Amino acid sequence: MKNETVLIVGNSVNCVDLFYLSNFLSEDDFVYLSAPSPTIFVSSMEFERAKRESKVSVESLQDYGKKIEEALVEILKKRELKNISVPPYFPLSIAERLKSEGMKLKVISDIVPQRRIKNPEEVKKISISQRIAGEAMKMVLRILKKSKEKGGILYYGDFPLTSERLKTLVSLKLISLSSSCEMMIISSGTQTAIPHHRGEGEIKSGESIVVDIFPKHTLFRYHGDLSRTFVVGEPAQELREAYDHVLNAQQLALSMIHSGLSCRELHSAVKDYFSDHGYETDVKKSTGFIHSTGHGIGLEIHEPPLISENDETLERGNVITVEPGLYFPKRFGVRVEDVAVVHRDGVKIIEGGVPKILEVWKFE
Amino acid sequence: MKNETVLIVGNSVNCVDLFYLSNFLSEDDFVYLSAPSPTIFVSSMEFERAKRESKVSVESLQDYGKKIEEALVEILKKRELKNISVPPYFPLSIAERLKSEGMKLKVISDIVPQRRIKNPEEVKKISISQRIAGEAMKMVLRILKKSKEKGGILYYGDFPLTSERLKTLVSLKLISLSSSCEMMIISSGTQTAIPHHRGEGEIKSGESIVVDIFPKHTLFRYHGDLSRTFVVGEPAQELREAYDHVLNAQQLALSMIHSGLSCRELHSAVKDYFSDHGYETDVKKSTGFIHSTGHGIGLEIHEPPLISENDETLERGNVITVEPGLYFPKRFGVRVEDVAVVHRDGVKIIEGGVPKILEVWKFE
Repeated sequence: MKNETVLIVGNSVNCVDLFYLSNFLSEDDFVYLSAPSPTIFVSSMEFERAKRESKVSVESLQDYGKKIEEALVEILKKRELKNISVPPYFPLSIAERLKSEGMKLKVISDIVPQRRIKNPEEVKKISISQRIAGEAMKMVLRILKKSKEKGGILYYGDFPLTSERLKTLVSLKLISLSSSCEMMIISSGTQTAIPHHRGEGEIKSGESIVVDIFPKHTLFRYHGDLSRTFVVGEPAQELREAYDHVLNAQQLALSMIHSGLSCRELHSAVKDYFSDHGYETDVKKSTGFIHSTGHGIGLEIHEPPLISENDETLERGNVITVEPGLYFPKRFGVRVEDVAVVHRDGVKIIEGGVPKILEVWKFE
Repeated sequence: MKNETVLIVGNSVNCVDLFYLSNFLSEDDFVYLSAPSPTIFVSSMEFERAKRESKVSVESLQDYGKKIEEALVEILKKRELKNISVPPYFPLSIAERLKSEGMKLKVISDIVPQRRIKNPEEVKKISISQRIAGEAMKMVLRILKKSKEKGGILYYGDFPLTSERLKTLVSLKLISLSSSCEMMIISSGTQTAIPHHRGEGEIKSGESIVVDIFPKHTLFRYHGDLSRTFVVGEPAQELREAYDHVLNAQQLALSMIHSGLSCRELHSAVKDYFSDHGYETDVKKSTGFIHSTGHGIGLEIHEPPLISENDETLERGNVITVEPGLYFPKRFGVRVEDVAVVHRDGVKIIEGGVPKILEVWKFE
């Protein structure tokens, strides 16, 4: 890997590889080239800012050509670089232009493999985001605990407590803690049976409430990821049972994790636990345990390793979510999620500081 | 274009073409295929949600294969589709897999050309975001007007008024109006000489303050884009002059716009105005007017047409920014920006409701 010439093109708000390699954040496309020494090529308008913020050398694209692909042809020719490694998402149009000049592109599926292994600085940044997620989750718990039931519907103050209202309150909390989570989930009732249903409308007592908050810190740009399932009032027996099994499955997974464990083995153990207790575990269906056990987390909310049926192995320094769930279409869903760092002999949870309780009256 | 088979792969939070075509918002990758009838292929976990939210047909990727590229091979073979049009950003790795099966990919630079022409519904959504930007800008003006100078530095309440504080207050305002603007600019002093400097630290009286707010609405996902330049206290004569010239250049540009006008002609007129008044206009330098006159705006903050030296022509229904600016390294910068809809015979500004004043004491 060390002798490869790596080329990436994109904007670093969307392309986190670029942000990781350069520390330069821009909504406009720029170029990263690893050889002869790591350099980014940015528009002349971004040049001054890039020089201040980038951790690698900076050159101006306009010194080479007006369009990125034409500038790139010049840049690579001048450096006599012909064999280039690019990421899977490398834009086809630029690839075709470079190939037309006789350059050879090799797609490398994991072009910044060091992103998988978080150094202590990165773990600290994820911990900050996870604590922020925890603060927001505790606010949700406080609001749910204070809300009153009228005719089956929850009221907070004089108005019904809706998913939309709760999400706005969480967003304000997150902003005040320098973070945001545009796609957060606060769903209730039958909505919770759809894992990624973001939630809408009034919240009823006795129904499952799934809260999944994954804030990205505005400055550091690392994510936290925390899910809890709550009920205001009395949960039905089948919901209580599903919840206990989800907690047990999570505990089982956490007890197994150590560096060297295969993702397949971990995921299978969780599936086996659920099927041993009578739940379905076919990802092609919509009932039972129908998603992965977890995923890597960092600059992206979902990044490798995926804890599912694949040939990956957990390594020291992986930061992953552990989030079993159970889903019952048109009825309810349950999910509990924490974030953990993989160690040589075990795992360490990155604490969000939120208890695992189903019934909100138990929250103190 | 009508008989083309269009294929797009990506996640619709980042890839707005996908959101535009499907109305399905997801952080996970999915597939859009236009033939035989427009369909998205999503993971089984997203299937139920996609069926509720997508405006085109939905199928499950898992019915075809585990990895997107393998599923795609099956999907295209089953439909006997061999000649496929893809966007410039189409991922190289998937392109290579499809080509290995004998499929022919053609890169189309403007694969969703209808995005350039905003229908009345889209103009309305942009107008909402522009009014939100205006509300936030007026809040900034009120805070600046209320702040007091002590030893050259502005205080708001008992604490210095910093860029960071103002940006947090604006973020809270935007969240309360269902929108956000992660990359907003509130810079001051010499920072304003760098067009995309996001701003940091204390704000001083008598110095240029550039505020550039471009909120995206959380539900509609269209942007507003509004910039103003302010001074608390007395601006220096050269800043006052630069400001007046920027206003004049913006007025000149607005007076010229109509459908059929070339972007090059419009941009040249603005450059000529500035150079006639003794300012530099070389985009490769860092002094004077060093960026484009404006850009299209919609689901993306920067989208075609770009009002610069290119061969594009303005069309009815384009929604564009008009934002001349002047920059003087290590001294100050000025930018004033509004959004307008191109009509047959002229242009209509989408109002943010914020006056163009340099000195904040003039704000009422």
